[in-house]
Amino acid sequence: MADQKVYQASTTAPVNIAVVKYWGKRDPKLNLPTNSSVSVTLSQADLRTHTTAACSSSFGSEDSLLLNSSPQDVTGARTQACFRELRSLRAQLEASDASLPKLSPLPLRIVSENNFPTAAGLASSAAGFAALVRAIANLYELSSSPTELSRIARQGSGSACRSLFGGYVAWQMGEKADGSDSVAVEVAPASHWPTMRALILVVSAEKKGVSSTSGMQITVATSELFQRRAEVVVPRHMLKMEKAIKEKDFEAFGKVTMMESNSFHATCLDTFPPIFYLNDVSRAAIRAVEDINTKAGKVIAAYTFDAGPNAVIYYEEENTEAVAGVLKSALGNLDGWQGRDIKEQASDNLDARAVQVLKDGVSRVILTQVGEGPIRTEESLIAANGEPITK
Amino acid sequence: MADQKVYQASTTAPVNIAVVKYWGKRDPKLNLPTNSSVSVTLSQADLRTHTTAACSSSFGSEDSLLLNSSPQDVTGARTQACFRELRSLRAQLEASDASLPKLSPLPLRIVSENNFPTAAGLASSAAGFAALVRAIANLYELSSSPTELSRIARQGSGSACRSLFGGYVAWQMGEKADGSDSVAVEVAPASHWPTMRALILVVSAEKKGVSSTSGMQITVATSELFQRRAEVVVPRHMLKMEKAIKEKDFEAFGKVTMMESNSFHATCLDTFPPIFYLNDVSRAAIRAVEDINTKAGKVIAAYTFDAGPNAVIYYEEENTEAVAGVLKSALGNLDGWQGRDIKEQASDNLDARAVQVLKDGVSRVILTQVGEGPIRTEESLIAANGEPITK
Repeated sequence: MADQKVYQASTTAPVNIAVVKYWGKRDPKLNLPTNSSVSVTLSQADLRTHTTAACSSSFGSEDSLLLNSSPQDVTGARTQACFRELRSLRAQLEASDASLPKLSPLPLRIVSENNFPTAAGLASSAAGFAALVRAIANLYELSSSPTELSRIARQGSGSACRSLFGGYVAWQMGEKADGSDSVAVEVAPASHWPTMRALILVVSAEKKGVSSTSGMQITVATSELFQRRAEVVVPRHMLKMEKAIKEKDFEAFGKVTMMESNSFHATCLDTFPPIFYLNDVSRAAIRAVEDINTKAGKVIAAYTFDAGPNAVIYYEEENTEAVAGVLKSALGNLDGWQGRDIKEQASDNLDARAVQVLKDGVSRVILTQVGEGPIRTEESLIAANGEPITK
Repeated sequence: MADQKVYQASTTAPVNIAVVKYWGKRDPKLNLPTNSSVSVTLSQADLRTHTTAACSSSFGSEDSLLLNSSPQDVTGARTQACFRELRSLRAQLEASDASLPKLSPLPLRIVSENNFPTAAGLASSAAGFAALVRAIANLYELSSSPTELSRIARQGSGSACRSLFGGYVAWQMGEKADGSDSVAVEVAPASHWPTMRALILVVSAEKKGVSSTSGMQITVATSELFQRRAEVVVPRHMLKMEKAIKEKDFEAFGKVTMMESNSFHATCLDTFPPIFYLNDVSRAAIRAVEDINTKAGKVIAAYTFDAGPNAVIYYEEENTEAVAGVLKSALGNLDGWQGRDIKEQASDNLDARAVQVLKDGVSRVILTQVGEGPIRTEESLIAANGEPITK
């Protein structure tokens, strides 16, 4: 009778929010992007995926994935690509050291939990695939670096590659057809610029529009401005952003962040038919940030929007009152402020109409900050007998 | 004692709505654009400016302009440029024929009335300056062609140059530094394609955002995608649009019209700080047009938006029921449908949420069609004694 031992390992992985945006694939199968991108990894204390990967001959014949207690399809090409690549690395290890248990042929059981709503438009697939790849790499005891693993996670979800690092992370688009040089690298660790804060305005759910996966390829095919963005605009923004991060220059960081978000959404609007992720609530958030910066006389807050209406507002700790405190004064009734020691500051400099639109359209705030990359944990979501642990 | 006779002439002039958009000046003083544009002239039965120009030594020493009974400032460089150019042409005539009365030195009195609300974002300055230039040209008995007058009207308001023609009109950007070749020409008269209809959804007034005059120069200065639009995208659209008009190919006309509007608003969004003219009501109008076209299986309706949230929807007469009839069925309670014989058609193919947003956000509809250029009229807004006639 075969070994029925349950092997397992667990990790948590973070969400990242891009400040130079990924939009457009030059190779949809390999998730190779048309341009490089940069993100800030957010603290796992607030937003994280927790994943346990296990394998055992007792698991039957099929791989499986449970996310927030719901079975997920693992037969898709993206998940399969991650499993295949990781198994291949494990098989190499096993071939070079006969003493290692033969894990690579065993069925995988993955159990995952997010500490935030999956569908809130908070880049859950990035944290999800980063955690999946990192957990299996731990299970397989791979010595691969985060950059090496990022090449694999990228095939699951493009932006997931950036969630293998903490701090400030670049996804280099690469040049090779096989994607081997399309990987994530650290621009700077969280400790280099630890005072970066993020306030997320979660906009009340509207029917989800175009998914980012299909949306970006319609942009590539139909936007007449997109090529300019990919070839000229983003390379300029990459240089400015990496310099701003290295120099901890918030004004430069903030300006590029806002212009990048605008440029990305402009190419969405230039898509045919047009794609709208920003709505009137998003516009009100932009207006509020503009008013905050006008009062400060410089850029102390920077908005960015992914493929949805939620605003992510970056600011530095020293401006907590002038940014988060002002918004708390205007939107203090919302969920998310509780338990955070943020002193309110008068919000009479904010456009009254914008405040009303935000009051009506924002469902909650999330206060967080720059954080670490995946963290190995002994807390497991799978029992020793192989059964998922439901909380 | 000098001749105190009151000389006068009157005209009406139309509104035009661009299908290839003007946005950006290469010379702000002369209103020289960064790209060419094309518009459809709308019927004066629905939207027009009526202007009487008079001159007399009895008018004192200053030029004056009354618009909808309100005195307007005529000392601005734009109005002054129009007066100066027209006086110069009259002075040439007088110099070559001593029998002509010496009108060029006399003070001008202009009285103007719009048959639509000035501030509704309906290109009133285009009709206004076209009527002003045409009325003074009539008063001065200039033999100048509409294209020659368009060079003058352009200096008053860029898009005004296109309102000197009926039908389908191109504003050729020109190359010369003095702007002498930046003029309007007829692409086709209204009679070439008389079945073109326009339905305007007037969106409830929101505080007016950035004016187009200042907005477009901020775009030129800050948008990293704008240059691509001006240099590559618009020239392509100009060729396609002129071909579509000549061939009366609505599908091509409609597709370029929609992509042009999207491209223009994309560069507004790419401006820093970003300029938003489209709001959630505009987005709902886009969605409704998309749903109408989806049901038809081809492009039978085309949206376009100027520097404001109002939707202008072009369609051909044969599709009146499938476009206007469907919208009437959904929005029949609004002002503007009365007295028009439009048969309602079921609107259950329209997205229900979009319909609700339109119901809440559209204040009235205007039904109109392609129309003629300025029309000389004997109906005067100035009495024989020189006094304005108030209605």
